[in-house]
Formats: sequence, structure tokens, C-alpha cells
Amino acid sequence: MHETIQGTRPGDRTIRLTRPGEQKLRRIGAGAFEATINVLRPTTRLGRWTANLRHVLIGRPIATADQAHERLSKFKALAVFSSDNLSSSAYATEEILLVLILAGTGSLNYSVPIAFAIACLAAIVVTSYVQLVRAYPGGGGAYAVTKENLGTSTSLVIGSTLFVDYILTVAVSTAAGVAAITSAAPELYSARIEIAVAFVALLTLGNLRGIRESGSLFAIPPYIFILSFGGMLGVGLVRLLLGDDLHAATQTRALEEGTQALTLFLLLRAFSSGAAALTGIEAIADGVPSFKAPEARNASVTLVWMACILGSFFIGTTILATQFDIIPAEDRTVVSQIASTVFGDGPLFYVVQVSTAMILVLAANTAFAGLPTLASVMARDRVMPTQFAFRGDRLAFSNGILVLGAASSAVLVLFEADTHKLIPLYAFGVFVAFTMSQAGMVVHWRRLRTPHWRAYLALNALGMLVTGVVAVIVGATKFVDGAWLSMSAMGVLYVVLWSITKHYEDSNDQLGVGLTDERSIAEHFYGVSSGRAHTVIVPVEQINRAVLRTVAYARTLSAQAVAVYVTDEREAGDAFRRQWEESVPDVPLTVVESPYRSLIEPLMAFIEGMDRTQPGQAVTVVLPEYVVKRVWHRALHNQLGVRLKKALRSRPNTIIVEVPYHLER
Amino acid sequence: MHETIQGTRPGDRTIRLTRPGEQKLRRIGAGAFEATINVLRPTTRLGRWTANLRHVLIGRPIATADQAHERLSKFKALAVFSSDNLSSSAYATEEILLVLILAGTGSLNYSVPIAFAIACLAAIVVTSYVQLVRAYPGGGGAYAVTKENLGTSTSLVIGSTLFVDYILTVAVSTAAGVAAITSAAPELYSARIEIAVAFVALLTLGNLRGIRESGSLFAIPPYIFILSFGGMLGVGLVRLLLGDDLHAATQTRALEEGTQALTLFLLLRAFSSGAAALTGIEAIADGVPSFKAPEARNASVTLVWMACILGSFFIGTTILATQFDIIPAEDRTVVSQIASTVFGDGPLFYVVQVSTAMILVLAANTAFAGLPTLASVMARDRVMPTQFAFRGDRLAFSNGILVLGAASSAVLVLFEADTHKLIPLYAFGVFVAFTMSQAGMVVHWRRLRTPHWRAYLALNALGMLVTGVVAVIVGATKFVDGAWLSMSAMGVLYVVLWSITKHYEDSNDQLGVGLTDERSIAEHFYGVSSGRAHTVIVPVEQINRAVLRTVAYARTLSAQAVAVYVTDEREAGDAFRRQWEESVPDVPLTVVESPYRSLIEPLMAFIEGMDRTQPGQAVTVVLPEYVVKRVWHRALHNQLGVRLKKALRSRPNTIIVEVPYHLER
Repeated sequence: MHETIQGTRPGDRTIRLTRPGEQKLRRIGAGAFEATINVLRPTTRLGRWTANLRHVLIGRPIATADQAHERLSKFKALAVFSSDNLSSSAYATEEILLVLILAGTGSLNYSVPIAFAIACLAAIVVTSYVQLVRAYPGGGGAYAVTKENLGTSTSLVIGSTLFVDYILTVAVSTAAGVAAITSAAPELYSARIEIAVAFVALLTLGNLRGIRESGSLFAIPPYIFILSFGGMLGVGLVRLLLGDDLHAATQTRALEEGTQALTLFLLLRAFSSGAAALTGIEAIADGVPSFKAPEARNASVTLVWMACILGSFFIGTTILATQFDIIPAEDRTVVSQIASTVFGDGPLFYVVQVSTAMILVLAANTAFAGLPTLASVMARDRVMPTQFAFRGDRLAFSNGILVLGAASSAVLVLFEADTHKLIPLYAFGVFVAFTMSQAGMVVHWRRLRTPHWRAYLALNALGMLVTGVVAVIVGATKFVDGAWLSMSAMGVLYVVLWSITKHYEDSNDQLGVGLTDERSIAEHFYGVSSGRAHTVIVPVEQINRAVLRTVAYARTLSAQAVAVYVTDEREAGDAFRRQWEESVPDVPLTVVESPYRSLIEPLMAFIEGMDRTQPGQAVTVVLPEYVVKRVWHRALHNQLGVRLKKALRSRPNTIIVEVPYHLER
Repeated sequence: MHETIQGTRPGDRTIRLTRPGEQKLRRIGAGAFEATINVLRPTTRLGRWTANLRHVLIGRPIATADQAHERLSKFKALAVFSSDNLSSSAYATEEILLVLILAGTGSLNYSVPIAFAIACLAAIVVTSYVQLVRAYPGGGGAYAVTKENLGTSTSLVIGSTLFVDYILTVAVSTAAGVAAITSAAPELYSARIEIAVAFVALLTLGNLRGIRESGSLFAIPPYIFILSFGGMLGVGLVRLLLGDDLHAATQTRALEEGTQALTLFLLLRAFSSGAAALTGIEAIADGVPSFKAPEARNASVTLVWMACILGSFFIGTTILATQFDIIPAEDRTVVSQIASTVFGDGPLFYVVQVSTAMILVLAANTAFAGLPTLASVMARDRVMPTQFAFRGDRLAFSNGILVLGAASSAVLVLFEADTHKLIPLYAFGVFVAFTMSQAGMVVHWRRLRTPHWRAYLALNALGMLVTGVVAVIVGATKFVDGAWLSMSAMGVLYVVLWSITKHYEDSNDQLGVGLTDERSIAEHFYGVSSGRAHTVIVPVEQINRAVLRTVAYARTLSAQAVAVYVTDEREAGDAFRRQWEESVPDVPLTVVESPYRSLIEPLMAFIEGMDRTQPGQAVTVVLPEYVVKRVWHRALHNQLGVRLKKALRSRPNTIIVEVPYHLER
């Protein structure tokens, strides 16, 4: 047995297998194997059952080599990533009008220039993000650009604000969708939290199936929305140009005095409210690696398409609202007023309404595409736990998806799926991210000085200024209504991320010391050559088969292994020694009398003593471990092991080896 | 370094110490050491703090050798063990009268013959227990005699009934004591549960200080009770004999018709109610090892003394109650009526009242002396977890004391410290124990046939019969009022004890197989000679100092140690191999490609493959373990170790070794 091992390189021995069809490892070179799909084949009934459940819920595992097939085409990507952004055309105009009307109906006409100004801002931000995507094709968006140009600490600010905003995106859009359902079917109102959480669970599951499949699953509603909403705006504008006299049917737009004066601040507030339309631009930059190659190019093209659609929808909606003399009402949205003005009460009206409701819910899906990829980028940078970089069975970043699903469900439960409570918490984070990412780009241009860098720099500086102002206004106006809560959450998250980063850096410092010097490995660390003895101690409590096997194992580690028995009665010690010398004559026994009945402390003293005789060497403590069939049986065994492990945990250079003994009953 | 070990017997090397005053182990012979008190000296600030707290609360540790000094003298033992028993003289007569009065005041005179009958029963039971104590001086009472004569299964019935009864004794007597306090100070009524639990905590702490000290702490009230109660009865009887015409002051004893006929069943019920006076006899038999040597003799003498005091108190109380024409009343106990008849309203009356209240509470202390010793006897027999056999710092069976304190506190909270809810649960178990212990003694006599065995056998058979009838009556009459609950608890406890016994027996069977054949220990178990190589595998995830030290350790175990790296990308595997061969040229690396990104399954397949090439040998898997300073840092490391340990847990002959690497930040 022993001789066959000598001289061969163990890793190269052919792995013998029971049956050819069940081969688990395939030899692919010297010391190199490839695992087959067989390694995943469960061996127990429970294992098979859970594997089948996984296959039904999220599908069969996909090999890493097939990753390229799992990417998104521009067509699907537009559906996945634009949902959040385009859904804002459903409410951005209304948000502007709701602020302006405070200064009277006469001021509503200011909405058109404001909409154009926001479109300009969007153009600046999108241009800057196109540059950003090309400069950071690995994904991570604002986080990546900030990390490289403004340092890790600043990038953690971005990470925490974006995480909170993504979680809130899921919560807000789900709550809005559920609100649409419960206003149609009020009897479901009491179950709204359950319905909202069920929606999130559905999105989580869909995204665990992999980005391509979730893209297919959730692609149709965005395109129905684009077609019907675009159609509505087109028909409306054409009819206006043809001179049809269209007005909102339900209201007459009399000149009314407002409660506030039309100040610059009010105009700025209206601008900030409408600027919520910009949320969702970040998601594409975060999710670049989800695109088919060439990733950066495809992402930029999708980004530009999305911006054009959003811009035209937003401006179109605003023009039509002004031309139709629409004023915001409590019981009817601006979009539904436009739709009914253009289409009357026909089926097209309902198509616009239903597809608008669906895009509002699917805005959550964009967050599921953005956050997990961002988290994976951060995990690779070791500012998040490494688990977030792991791709699951379907190549999706499962841990990020699960955490997002759980966190947004928690938010929904906490705020009772109430949009009015949730909306004030939202949108601050993304403007902080915009501001910082443009600041990062400013540094980027100063650093690289590529052609036309001055123009780009100026553009980004302007973008930074404007988004910064919006961030301040959004934060200030929403602060008391709830933004303080999301800001606090961002603060806490920042501390968590910072601590993780710090710990990984510390670990790295400690683990990397003198790495290049280590060649003669066993000698360097333990001062002994390979396979030579070191201190091996076996604490024994009784003589049985498990103990004997443990002692046997200790002997294979070292011929100098020594057993130690602690007793509180001298007679018991003598009796044990007689029994021991009869059973195991080749392993010396030390008996330690413990007059105060303590067990761990005398053992520790003995181990310390042994250690002192051979300083620097490793001390190995070998213990039997009774592996039991039932959980409660554990309380009946291994007390010494549990306590000794705890006591030895802080001792340097001490290794505890538990030799398992399987009890079948 | 290595040479100094060769040839010497490691256990015999002198243990070198840093400073002479801090010697922890003293060499007392070849391979034999004695731990000094220094091993208990805490090294950390927290350790010193908790040690000081322990010293204040329960006192400094006592050496096992001083065990003899910690035993109880007969004087203290009578106080500790008689509290429960003597406290029944406070209520047993009343219990009889409360049943008899159902048949009218005329039938109250039957209480005297019933009291004599109970005294006879007590005499039989005590005689039998004196024999029992001599036959089983190791303690355990009814349990021990049943186990030897009627088998383990039957003895577990006794164990479970006695445990439940002891717990209920503590709960009932504490609740009764608190009821006495709250009837004096009604404003404390709402805090009665807290007060009761505080009493139990006090008793627990007192008993953790060791039996001798708890004996001293709680010895005075029982003797005050004996003196005052005995004095009251003596004065009363003398005055009756002298012809004083004494009658209960508050009531006239008119002949009243009862609601029930005076049937034999009613008389039996009265007898059973009064028989509650016998509880507490068992405790002495359980606690024999707590007596000073000669244990059995001292315990028997104490038992006889206790029985004589109880008998005279009980008969005396019953005679006086009858002679004084006392009828049980709702607002005044029979004892207080006797006391006020004998002493009037003077200070002696209050001494009787207060000492009676105190003995009622201290009945709980008897259970603290009984249950832990019984549990320790059962743990030594391996029908209870071995932890119960362990003597704490003060030689008390700490675990039994703590469990009794916790369980009775739970019962008090559950039943809101309400005696009316608790009393029906109680007293059934002890009569089952009496019956079974006498049955056990019957078998004992038949087996041993010592002189006069036929007479003893007849006595025990009679005792068995009578206590059996009482058990049935107590069980039947109290069943619906709550005894079903305690019986269910006994049933559950029986199943638990039986399962523990079964598991320890199973373990023993599995661990003891072929024990006498094992001599050539390493060869027998692993087919290799001492200190020779076996399969050692080191799964690695990266190259850092911790990993390198782990590999170095693996090399000290075996020159054939092999490292294995799992990757989901071939390029990453090649890059790692290059890095590895540069850092650790003397340890071969196997790279396993895992196309489905699974980590554990390919490792398991590799380990299985290695195992198949060397069947029967141990497989050692060596992993680095990052020991962190903060609990939450754990989530950032060791994921592979945690998952691999879980996966390898069920593999036979596979040993996982974690080499700790201490991260300081």
C-alpha cells in the first residue's frame, strides 16, 4: 500500500472510478482535472429533491464557458435597463406641474422650458455616462469612476447611496404597481403588503434564472409601453398640428391665483422634481458586463436610445399637457388625462393605462440588473464580502439578487407598501451618484488629457454643478419627510462598507508579509523538515474504540505522540494507567491530578509545558469527535472537545485535530 | 530540537516554567503530575472579574481531597433533609379534616385513627428505607433499588417521577411561602412571581455554595420550628391531661350534617390526603453520599429521628385538633387555631406561625439536597447526561442544582406562583416511587435471603400494597385537577431518559467492539506504522501567509501532501499554477477546473479519488482557518472551511485539520 505512493507525484495518479458513466473528474493534463456535471449529481434523496426544486424554479446550471450566450442583446437590454428610466415619463411632467400650480394655473406654462432644461441636463449626464461606460467597461458606473479618480473612501459613499437607492427603487415601484391594482380592486387593499412582497419574490426568482431569461421574461411590457405611449404622443401632436381643438374633457382651465409667488426657488423646485426622470441612467453603467460584446459600445448605444426615447416622451408629454390645458388632479394622472383626450374612452386608452402601470412595476427589474452587478464589482475590489462576486447556477450574481429581494421586501413590510411614505426617501442617492461620477470624470479628463479633453471636462463640470444643485434641493426639500431616514441608512451602510474594506486591507497586510521570501516552507514555519515529528498530544477521558482510533491517528502523525489523562482522584488515575498500559503499551500516558476537578486548565498547563520544551514548533492536540445521528445526541458527547477548542482558540501555533468516529445509532 | 525528544518518554520531561511561584503542574511521579491551584488563576481581566464574582457568590474552590469535611453532620442533615417532611405536619391534619367534614362534623373524630394508620404506614416506609439506605449507601434511593432489582426501564420511571416531584416541591413550597408573605402584605401580591423566583435563586445560590454551607445557612429555621411546634403540642397535651378545658376560641362545634355519606372511600381519601405527610422520606435515601461517614448509618439514624418527630407532631396535632373541637376554616389554619388555643395571642403564638411559614419555604431546600445527588447517581449509571455527575467548585453537583432552580422557576412563572394551581400536580410521583422502591426491596430480600428476610419481605410487601393504593387514589382524585399534567411531564421525561440511556448503551456497544484485541494501534486502524505518511490534501484558494503556513503544516504531517486548487476558468488555473510553482516548488499542485462554478463538489470528488487509491487509510484535509478579532469578521473569511467541513462530516475516515492563523486587526 505504502510503497505505491512513494516517488510518484500524488496529484498525477489516475483517479479510479466506480462506474465509467459516473466519472466526476476528467484528467486534462499533468496535475489538472476537469469536473464533469456528475459532481453536481446529488447522492441523497433530499439532495435530489432540492436539486429538482432548484431546476424547476431557476433552471439547470449553465457552464461558465457559456457565459457569452447569456449576455443581453441591445433589444433585451433596452427593455431591462430602460424600465426604471422610461417609467419616469409617466410621472415627471406631473411632478413639475404639481409644484408650478402652487403659483397659480398661469404659471403652468413654465413647464415647457423646464422640460427642455431637464432634457438638456439629461443630455449632459448621458454624454458623460457614455464616456464613463467606455472608460470603465467592467461595470460599476459611478462607483468605478469615483474609486479610480477620487479614492476608495469616496467610492464607498457612492456604493452606499446607490445600494439604498436601488433598494428603494424596488420598494417604490412595487408599491406603486400594487397601488394601481388595489385602486382597481379595493378588496385587495388589506393584502397589499403580501402582494408587494410576492411581486418582489417573483422578480427575485426571475432574475435568479439568469439575466438573459429575465430579459426575455420581462421584455414585452416595456415595448408595449414604448409603442402605446409613443403612439399617444404622436397622434396627439399630429392632431394639434392639423389644428384640432383638443382640451382636457373634465376640467376647464380658469385663471386661478396660486398660494405662492412664482420665485426662482419655486422654479428650481419644479426643475428638481422633474429631474427625477434621470434616475435609471446609472443602471446601464453599473450593468455593462451584462451586455453582449462589444459590451461598452452596446451599452452606450442602448444608453443613447434610452435617452432619446425618454427625452421625446418627456417633452412630448409636457407640450401636450400644456396645449390641452391639463391641470394636475387628485383622482386622475396627467398621463390618463392626455390619453383620454387623445384616444377618448376606447381600447387604446386602456392599453396606455395598463402598459403604464406595468412599466412602473418593472422599474424594479432595472434595480435587479443594476445592484447585483455593482455589488460584484465592489466584491472583486474587496470592499464588499467576496460572496457577492460569486455567480450562481445560472451565472447571475445570486447573492446580490437575494439580498436586494430581501432588503426591499423588508422596506415594503416596514413602510406597509405605502408609496406616500416611501417616495420622500427616494432619489437623493442617485443625484449624489451623478454629481460624484461627473466629478470623477473631471479628474479623469485632467489626468488623461485625451483629444478634446477640455470640452469634455467643461461638459462634466457643468453636469456636476447642475446635478449637485439638484441633489442639494432634493435632499433639503425631502429631508424632514423621510430623506433623513434614507440618508441615515446610507450613513450606516457607509460605515459597514468602510469596515469591510478596512478589514480586508488589514488582512491583506498581515497575510502578505514577507510573501516573496517563503521558499523552504516547512523549515521556515516550523523549523522541521517534511514528515518529521512535532508535538502531538492526545487528551483521553476513557478507553474505547473511538479513543483508540484517535490515538492511532496521532501515532501516524508522530511517533512521539503522548496521551494525557486528567483525574480528580489519585486512585482513579492509577487504575486508568494500568488499563492504558495494558491496552496501548506503545503510547506513553501522562496522568495529571486535578484536585479542584477542573479539566481544561490542567490540560492547558500541560500543553503550555510541552510547548515550552519545543518553542516555535506547532502543537497538535488530537481529540476524538463522536459524530452522532441525531442533533440532540451532541449534548451527550464531545464536551471536552468543545471546551478545549474554545480554550485553545486564542493560542498561537496550536492545531486541534478532531478524529471523527461515526456512531450509527 | 528534534534530537532531544528522541528516546525519552515525552510525558516525563520536566515541564519548564517561567516563574517558580506560578508553577501550574507539580511532578509527582513517572508520567504523573498534579495541577496546583495556579491553573485556576485567570489570565485575562474579564477572567479575573468573573472569578472574583464567583468567589463572592459561591465561594472559593474546594479540593476534592477535602470532600470529607464538606459532608453533613446528623445535626445539619436533619435540618436539611427534614424540612420537606416536617413541613407536612403543618397541613397534613388539616387535609384529613377537610375530607372528613364532607360527611359532617361528627366524622371528624375519625381523624385520630387515620393519623395512627398513617403513622403506621410511615413506620413501615421508614423501616424499609432504613434497609434500603444500608443496602444502597451510594445514594439514589428508590431509583437505585429499582434499577438493581427491577431493571433499568423501571428505574427510569422512578427517576422521572422523582424529578417532576422534586421540581414541584420547590415550586409548591416557594409559592406557599410567598402566599404567606402576600397575605400579610397584600401590596406585594402583584410581584409574587418575581419574589418566588428570587427565593428560588437564593436557594440555588445557597446550594451552589456547597451542601455544608447551605446546611449551615438553612439550619436554624427548622430547629426553631421543631422547638416551637413541639413546645406547643407538649404544653397543649399537658394542659389537657391536667384537665384544663381547652376549646378553639373562634368556633362552636355544633353537630352538622355533611353533604356526603361516611363511606370507606371517603375514609380512604382522608387517609390518602394525610399520607402527603410521607413526602420527603425519599430525599434522605437519595442524598446518602452527603452525610459524614459512616454515611449509611448516619443517614438511617437521621431518618429514624425525622420519622419519630414527624409521627409525634402529626399524631399530636391530630389529637389536639380533635380534643379542641377544631373544624377547618377558610381563613385560619388548623395549626394557628391550635397555637392560639394553647398560647393565646402572645409572642409564642407568633413564633409558631412564623417558624411554620419558614419551614414551608425551606421544604424546597430538601429538594435541592435530593435531586442533584439523585441526578449524579443516574449520570454515573449513564442514564442521564454525564454533566450531572460533575462536582462544581464547591463539590456540589452544580448542574443538577442549576437545572432544578431553572425548572422550578419556569413552573412558578407558568403557574403564576399560585399554590391552588400547583398542589394538584404534586405528591403522585413520590407514592409511585414508594411503591416501586418497596417492590424493589421485596425482590431484594428474595434474592439475598439474609436472616429474617421473610419478615422484611412481608413488611415491604405490605408497604408496597398500601403505598400503591395511596398512589392510585392520589392519582385518580387529583387527575382532572392537574395531576394529568405532571403525569404527562413524567411521561415525557421518561422518554427523554430512556432515549439518553439507549443512546449511551448504543454508543457503548459501538465503541467497545473488539476492544481487547487492539494492541498494534496505528497498524490496526490505518495499516501504517507510526509516523508514516498517509493521504494529506490541502485545498487552496489563494497564496498568502496563512495558506503557506497551512501547507507547511501539511508537509510536517506527510511528505506526500498535495495541494488542490479549484477554478472555473482555465486561464485562472494556469496563472495560479505558475504563481504556485514559484512560491512552493516542493508541494505538488493539482488544478481542478469546475465549469459549473461549484467548489465543494469537485473537491469532494478529488478527495474521493485520492481515497480510492489508498483504501482504508485516513484522509487528512488541511485548511487554513482565519481566527479573527471581531465576530462579524467571520462572515468575511473561512467560507470554504465551513462548507467543506459540512460536506465532509459524513465521510468516514476523513479528518479535517484547521490550521489557525490569527489576524490581529
